[in-house]
Amino acid sequence: MLATFMYGAGDVRVEKAPDPALRNPTDAIVRTIRSSICGSDLHPYHSMPAAADGRPMGHELIAVVEEVGSMVRTVKPGDFVIASFAFQDNTCVFCREGVQTSCIHGGWYGSAETGGLQASLARIPLADGSLVKVPGIDPKTAGEGQLASLLTLADVYLTGFHAAHMGEVEPGKTVTVIGDGAVGLSAVLASRQLGAERIILMGRHIGRTDLGVEFGATDVVAERGTEGIAKVMDLTNGQGSHIVLEAVGHMPAYEQAYGIVRPGGIISRVGVPQYEQAPIGFGSLFGKNARLAGGPAPVRAYLEDAIPLVLSGEIEPGRVFDRTVTLQEVPAGYAAMNAREALKVMVTV
Amino acid sequence: MLATFMYGAGDVRVEKAPDPALRNPTDAIVRTIRSSICGSDLHPYHSMPAAADGRPMGHELIAVVEEVGSMVRTVKPGDFVIASFAFQDNTCVFCREGVQTSCIHGGWYGSAETGGLQASLARIPLADGSLVKVPGIDPKTAGEGQLASLLTLADVYLTGFHAAHMGEVEPGKTVTVIGDGAVGLSAVLASRQLGAERIILMGRHIGRTDLGVEFGATDVVAERGTEGIAKVMDLTNGQGSHIVLEAVGHMPAYEQAYGIVRPGGIISRVGVPQYEQAPIGFGSLFGKNARLAGGPAPVRAYLEDAIPLVLSGEIEPGRVFDRTVTLQEVPAGYAAMNAREALKVMVTV
Repeated sequence: MLATFMYGAGDVRVEKAPDPALRNPTDAIVRTIRSSICGSDLHPYHSMPAAADGRPMGHELIAVVEEVGSMVRTVKPGDFVIASFAFQDNTCVFCREGVQTSCIHGGWYGSAETGGLQASLARIPLADGSLVKVPGIDPKTAGEGQLASLLTLADVYLTGFHAAHMGEVEPGKTVTVIGDGAVGLSAVLASRQLGAERIILMGRHIGRTDLGVEFGATDVVAERGTEGIAKVMDLTNGQGSHIVLEAVGHMPAYEQAYGIVRPGGIISRVGVPQYEQAPIGFGSLFGKNARLAGGPAPVRAYLEDAIPLVLSGEIEPGRVFDRTVTLQEVPAGYAAMNAREALKVMVTV
Repeated sequence: MLATFMYGAGDVRVEKAPDPALRNPTDAIVRTIRSSICGSDLHPYHSMPAAADGRPMGHELIAVVEEVGSMVRTVKPGDFVIASFAFQDNTCVFCREGVQTSCIHGGWYGSAETGGLQASLARIPLADGSLVKVPGIDPKTAGEGQLASLLTLADVYLTGFHAAHMGEVEPGKTVTVIGDGAVGLSAVLASRQLGAERIILMGRHIGRTDLGVEFGATDVVAERGTEGIAKVMDLTNGQGSHIVLEAVGHMPAYEQAYGIVRPGGIISRVGVPQYEQAPIGFGSLFGKNARLAGGPAPVRAYLEDAIPLVLSGEIEPGRVFDRTVTLQEVPAGYAAMNAREALKVMVTV
């Protein structure tokens, strides 16, 4: 079978690999229907030092179960499933508290031999905790749009949803989303789903912000930095935004966030911070009682509720995909996302 | 009348000052029953450069109304009142959202002429928003303990309560309070009031932590830094604390906080941060979805609910006062708190 490995910055290769096999009785082997490339895959694409051993790539997947270990109870061969972007048992104390990304037994997919989830086949540890069955649908006859939207539930849409959820988005609130990437646009859609009254999208790529408007953004602010802050303050009568969803991860985005958050408001981050130290003292967060939330999205906590919304067509998060490549073409998919020619790339097998 | 001014680090003077007079129709003039010295008064006591003009001191007060402006509606001469530690209209958009410390028309008490609230008389701007009447009680016949507890509602107890409230303390939760000062002990009492299952108090002054135990602390950890973190992790089965209330404001306390907060947990700060930059990236907050909350306490939001708890004796937050001085003796009161000979000092007039 084929699997994707990265050998250094800009060096992605799709290679023949042995089929993965069950290793633990809680494992499942799945056959990929669709995989995708994540914005976070671009971090090593920018910075990974050249290495002799390839790094297995991919953590977003919809698939059909091929084989299950003897202790797997909730899925069986033939089931159509979504894999959450990290594995977890979904039973430990942190999983029960809704923080599956901190599962005591959890971790990241991938092995040096058989690759990650940008592959024809994959081994899913802790299958009962990590795979969720999509009921009543045959992937062979499902529409492309439906498959695309289901695929976003593995990561990108539910990461945007996590931002909105931890930001406590609710009817009547003004939400500002910083970032017009696929996660930012997902955060816009999730904010609309949760009933936000006003959704200001900060981004300057017209094609992307146009989709943001279709997803529910009521205002688009192209300016950044102090100009962007001034624009959002103007739009909110000088009061600031109840909720700021930060979907970038770089310091200027965080600086914008505390510049526009309203007293008593919440900044919710899902862009992986590319910094450790940041302002949180009297002049940034403390003085105005602004709160800070967010982190890696425990998508498993939200998956079961989200599937029916996609199946009914109530939300169409799959619209963030604007390019499709075959598994062999995955290196070109990375290049297209890296060049911002593509917003998000789906992978067929 | 007498009022307290600070002329530089360690230089507190009680001086004759003109009686304050109404300046705006929304003002009230009040006669002090009890005032007190706040831990935050010690910041300038440590660091204020010598100045020719004294800084007016004091922001905690229970009093009787002497005179009100023509637009004051909710209090009248003779009423026994508590002043929240900052003034606010309690009607602006941020006040209505429960962030009275960000009131658009709010501010701090005190004038260069007539002093602050460590004084015999004081002018209270926006009296309808800033003063709350204590019903059914005559300060002349009230017990000392009751007066002391009512006085804590001006600031210290409700600052501890704010920490617990923003930390979302509720039954079943493990709370760790960092700091055994008057605010930390108040946070312990507030956590018990809100039903915390377990309250770990980090502090090493035996007399203070003993009071913390009487207030509801179930465990006391005297260690600090990595040893303190290890101790709390031991006490919580290696999982960490659902909620950490940080009542110190120095960086080592914040470092302890993110070291012991559980995945998905909340750090709530009410110690005024003596830093601006701090770790909030993947290794501190983001990776484990820890949240950060807190700020200056909008005590006005909590005052009306807290008064009956004090009058009924359900809570006795006034026990944090362990020394009483007259107004003339206020400089000795500062010295005693600064030397940690006194936990918190009450001022009679």
